[in-house]
Amino acid sequence: MSLANRNLVTIDDLSNQEIEAVFSLADEISDSMNQQSSVCQGKIMASLFFEPSTRTRLSFEAAMHRLGGRVISVVEMGNTSLAKGESIADMARVVGSYADIIVIRHPWEGAAKVVADYASVPVINAGDGGHEHPTQTLCDLYTIKKERQTLEGLKIALWGDLKYGRTIHSLAYALARFGATIHFRPGSGLGLPEHVIRKLTTEYGGMLERYNDTKGADREMLFPLDAIYITPSKPHQLVNIPDVSIQIELKKGVDALYVTRLQRERLEPMAEGQELERDYPVVNKKLLKEKQFRQTLVMHPLPRIDELAYEIDADQRSMYFKQAAWGVPIRMALVALLLGAKQVDIPEKEGATFFLKIDYPAYNRDFGVRCKNKKCVSAQQTEKGYIKPGFKIVAHKPLTLRCVYCEHETHPPYIASSKWHQGIVDYKRYYDADSFMLGRIQPENLIIFDSKAIAQAEGFKPGKKALRG
Amino acid sequence: MSLANRNLVTIDDLSNQEIEAVFSLADEISDSMNQQSSVCQGKIMASLFFEPSTRTRLSFEAAMHRLGGRVISVVEMGNTSLAKGESIADMARVVGSYADIIVIRHPWEGAAKVVADYASVPVINAGDGGHEHPTQTLCDLYTIKKERQTLEGLKIALWGDLKYGRTIHSLAYALARFGATIHFRPGSGLGLPEHVIRKLTTEYGGMLERYNDTKGADREMLFPLDAIYITPSKPHQLVNIPDVSIQIELKKGVDALYVTRLQRERLEPMAEGQELERDYPVVNKKLLKEKQFRQTLVMHPLPRIDELAYEIDADQRSMYFKQAAWGVPIRMALVALLLGAKQVDIPEKEGATFFLKIDYPAYNRDFGVRCKNKKCVSAQQTEKGYIKPGFKIVAHKPLTLRCVYCEHETHPPYIASSKWHQGIVDYKRYYDADSFMLGRIQPENLIIFDSKAIAQAEGFKPGKKALRG
Amino acid sequence: MSLANRNLVTIDDLSNQEIEAVFSLADEISDSMNQQSSVCQGKIMASLFFEPSTRTRLSFEAAMHRLGGRVISVVEMGNTSLAKGESIADMARVVGSYADIIVIRHPWEGAAKVVADYASVPVINAGDGGHEHPTQTLCDLYTIKKERQTLEGLKIALWGDLKYGRTIHSLAYALARFGATIHFRPGSGLGLPEHVIRKLTTEYGGMLERYNDTKGADREMLFPLDAIYITPSKPHQLVNIPDVSIQIELKKGVDALYVTRLQRERLEPMAEGQELERDYPVVNKKLLKEKQFRQTLVMHPLPRIDELAYEIDADQRSMYFKQAAWGVPIRMALVALLLGAKQVDIPEKEGATFFLKIDYPAYNRDFGVRCKNKKCVSAQQTEKGYIKPGFKIVAHKPLTLRCVYCEHETHPPYIASSKWHQGIVDYKRYYDADSFMLGRIQPENLIIFDSKAIAQAEGFKPGKKALRG
Repeated sequence: MSLANRNLVTIDDLSNQEIEAVFSLADEISDSMNQQSSVCQGKIMASLFFEPSTRTRLSFEAAMHRLGGRVISVVEMGNTSLAKGESIADMARVVGSYADIIVIRHPWEGAAKVVADYASVPVINAGDGGHEHPTQTLCDLYTIKKERQTLEGLKIALWGDLKYGRTIHSLAYALARFGATIHFRPGSGLGLPEHVIRKLTTEYGGMLERYNDTKGADREMLFPLDAIYITPSKPHQLVNIPDVSIQIELKKGVDALYVTRLQRERLEPMAEGQELERDYPVVNKKLLKEKQFRQTLVMHPLPRIDELAYEIDADQRSMYFKQAAWGVPIRMALVALLLGAKQVDIPEKEGATFFLKIDYPAYNRDFGVRCKNKKCVSAQQTEKGYIKPGFKIVAHKPLTLRCVYCEHETHPPYIASSKWHQGIVDYKRYYDADSFMLGRIQPENLIIFDSKAIAQAEGFKPGKKALRG
Repeated sequence: MSLANRNLVTIDDLSNQEIEAVFSLADEISDSMNQQSSVCQGKIMASLFFEPSTRTRLSFEAAMHRLGGRVISVVEMGNTSLAKGESIADMARVVGSYADIIVIRHPWEGAAKVVADYASVPVINAGDGGHEHPTQTLCDLYTIKKERQTLEGLKIALWGDLKYGRTIHSLAYALARFGATIHFRPGSGLGLPEHVIRKLTTEYGGMLERYNDTKGADREMLFPLDAIYITPSKPHQLVNIPDVSIQIELKKGVDALYVTRLQRERLEPMAEGQELERDYPVVNKKLLKEKQFRQTLVMHPLPRIDELAYEIDADQRSMYFKQAAWGVPIRMALVALLLGAKQVDIPEKEGATFFLKIDYPAYNRDFGVRCKNKKCVSAQQTEKGYIKPGFKIVAHKPLTLRCVYCEHETHPPYIASSKWHQGIVDYKRYYDADSFMLGRIQPENLIIFDSKAIAQAEGFKPGKKALRG
Repeated sequence: MSLANRNLVTIDDLSNQEIEAVFSLADEISDSMNQQSSVCQGKIMASLFFEPSTRTRLSFEAAMHRLGGRVISVVEMGNTSLAKGESIADMARVVGSYADIIVIRHPWEGAAKVVADYASVPVINAGDGGHEHPTQTLCDLYTIKKERQTLEGLKIALWGDLKYGRTIHSLAYALARFGATIHFRPGSGLGLPEHVIRKLTTEYGGMLERYNDTKGADREMLFPLDAIYITPSKPHQLVNIPDVSIQIELKKGVDALYVTRLQRERLEPMAEGQELERDYPVVNKKLLKEKQFRQTLVMHPLPRIDELAYEIDADQRSMYFKQAAWGVPIRMALVALLLGAKQVDIPEKEGATFFLKIDYPAYNRDFGVRCKNKKCVSAQQTEKGYIKPGFKIVAHKPLTLRCVYCEHETHPPYIASSKWHQGIVDYKRYYDADSFMLGRIQPENLIIFDSKAIAQAEGFKPGKKALRG
């Protein structure tokens, strides 16, 4: 099978089987690292880092060099070139005419998708704001697989900054797809975003349990804060665990404890400060002495701040330097595959893959509604000129649109039908999104508005329900 | 023919035949891109970018990599290392001992010439302030040639920031040399500098026409602003077009419409602001519907801001992404030639080349007069210690010196003769530059002063004319 | 002999014979520069520059490219990534898993040692704050050797910023080891740090003479400022020169005059300003006309500011561009050796090497005393979590600890014995460091305190002497 010319923007761009295939190739490459130097000879990687990064950039560049390829780099510390006013699309088209593959890190969420949309060469997302960081997830999964021999049916705890930690989002999706039971233990105010939870519980068929009032002993141990839990809902994988048994289950121990630093650089200006550090989970020698962590892999995407004590670096369970080191063979495998320089056999597995992708209807009108996420690429001054808003309609009650760029969700308040629109002007009416009208409008006719003003600017008058609202 | 060890500081460093030869090699390279990987093996390019640049730097580096060479880079966002106080000459000498070829971009005008003067290896100017950007011009010309099959006798419109747009200056010279008729349509206050106009109308034999009072229909269409026009004065090329026929000629259409963004980063601090954007020309779908643009190539050096609408990106006439893409083979050809790794046959053409280089007398005394351009490399604190001012005397009425570094012109007010200087002190007199004395002093004896104070500091007293002044 | 897997953190990491061996290999490489392109094929150098540098970085990278290896780089202008809070140790471990060799420049003194301690690959110090810059020293020595054919018994003058000039420190150690007579002529207030002087006069067996009251003619010439002098104390090398004869000796001329720029970026915020420039030595045409410089090599590590006039660039004695140019073959030789890609024969010399390394006792308790140097890596917020203070006890009167990271010295005021500590609490007493108790405590029992407060926090009470203090 060939992955040539594919993009890796979100972890969902690879199926479970494809992920396993990348891992097989990475195994092969690790075993013969010195024999890879002509695999990508004559090929050029553009390494475009518009946000500070040492680890990810260097491991991509080292990977390309070990494959015998060449690298051209953009490393922007601040926002200098963004200030020049060039759009991401133009950059993608131009750089795509110089290089054979593009690796992009960017502070705007959805930026990697735009690069992939406009460049004529394969594009790898090396982190787009708080959205995704799929190659980190590949390294994470590969580390787990190397240690546990399987990716299926694992119990994993994700700790720390679950709100801004893009590595957490990509990893959670992947884990869910492989049927993991995931326990989320955020720092105070840093819980998993709602759109991530929705994805986990819909597309990936997870079952959610919330612990808002954890008390006593649990609070001392695994549940010092509110926590949520995702279990695979498939009966043939793990039995549906009732409330109490989850805690029993957890006390048996988790396969991996994955902790992240506070993503200070993504905090809203207001929110910054000491408060977020209150109750931030810390992994140290004392914690690892607890029974349930006896066999737990301690994982971290690095860099760390204070949430991971140096005193456990020599502990056999500490995997974080291995995670980083596996970055090179994993990225070598990925780059070689996307460049078509290597082929892999996709292992056909018995049993179902846990990946239940729901095909939500698209909403693509270029007026009426825009993404509300200020960090979304579609909301940026330099990009508005060409990016058309794009959404998936992921729920009706309330009406919920998910941005196709950053995947943030919005709940627009008004709707109308284009059938009336194209008809007699008197019939151009808009309604509350939560009115019964939503069910009556054919999906292909649906028009959605962010506000009354926008609806009216488009020539619509309030319908009966809307008048009341 | 070999171009080995030559520099490319201004577009005039290559003859028309040599430009055509670079293009032949670029054709050959494009056709066999995968067979170039040993052409520059073992060679190192130093890519020194002291100003932000993505496109130019990456395309040079990609070019070197595709030739099998290696790259060492300096990418300075701000002025950090300039602040360290090192001179360009020292940097050039040292880097020239590490690398086999130097590519330099620098905010100071004339910096590339200094690098070429001091480095022991070939030097390519990748943009020096508002002065020149000759490899962009090669890409521009190559794009036109690919589309029109010839570079001679073209009609070209140059729009936008003609004042600070160095790509415009290099391109205008090259077009004039190939006998083009050029129409300049600047944004408000962003007209072609006088020294560029002088060069076009003297060295390149262009005939100038100014339209200061364009009105009515013309203002609506091609001449919404004051415009100037350069036509080749050679009778065998195009007939001398009288006032009216130019407009008729233009209405027949131009071969290419070349538009540039406002070079905000070069504006004087005062001048910045909205006003410059008033009347700034914009190329969009509506404009391209006009008859005279029916077959026009739309060109832009990128990055664009608002002067080039995204809506025309898919238009067949839009050449700007091609211009960028041709950057790689063009720069491969150029680098391979300057490194002596490739040879080319210079096509001997019938008929004259349009390049009429006038050999103006030099003025090289290291006292008395300095370049007035604040962005000239010779005016910088760190460079004054070793750069001797150098000028060409390009006119007598008024006395006009052109700086050999930045090519800006100055009109110094006083003159004297060194013959008197070396004689009896009483005879050391200085005179007004516009006095009849200028004609009496032998060129080799001429001394020029920026001010009375300087003349007097050098021991000169006012002569009769100067007393009156 | 193999230097594979060795580090070069300070110039003392190489013996005199090893230095000579590097030079032999550099000779061989210079003579066949075009035949080195497969020496390090498949190897990756991580070039980590956390301080601005053009020369050193580019010459390392050019060296690796000329050896056929690849380079991954981090170039930090400001302190952006330092601000992210990642420790040097983590960076070293991670990058060490990507690359085969690490070259590090860092503003913190001792940073290169930390990288070497934590990375699993060879590490080369490319400058750590004001501490050392050993590869510059190799270039300096190689230049001298090329011109003088020997490194032994030389007379060298080191001028300029002897306080912050790390190249001066590394060079002085190396020169002393090769038996040089060194004359130090600092800019005002920029004298050699005491810890450097101590090293020169103890480990390297130098004899120190100070000239605090140089007057008259000498002040006009070689001694315009206070100066110090190091001569080898070994009688078989140079006779012990009495006070007067040094000046006579100097007037016979020095082999090399090494001048450095004022290291403005290392000055304490207060100290900056014009005053330091007062009396700063300048090398120019006039100076070089003096008799004692008739055959002197003029050396400078570059970049220069005003201390080295452009007018002498063409002088045959000017070596500074050669010093820079030799950087490539020297670094090629070094990198090839540390990567085990080349072997060398160590020339066994008759006679002693001048390197007298004294093995001072270590002091490694992780409480009680810390390095006082604010630029020491061990004093940094992000590094305190894992770096244990480490010292050598280099003197008893006064008690002097030398930091193993930055080599700055501290004179802690209080001592105690761990024997008492582990015994009855009533016996836990601390004493003045200059009391007779210091001699009574067994080295392995010695505890040292920075202050009374710290001693008391550790449970110690003042002993008799301390009470008086």
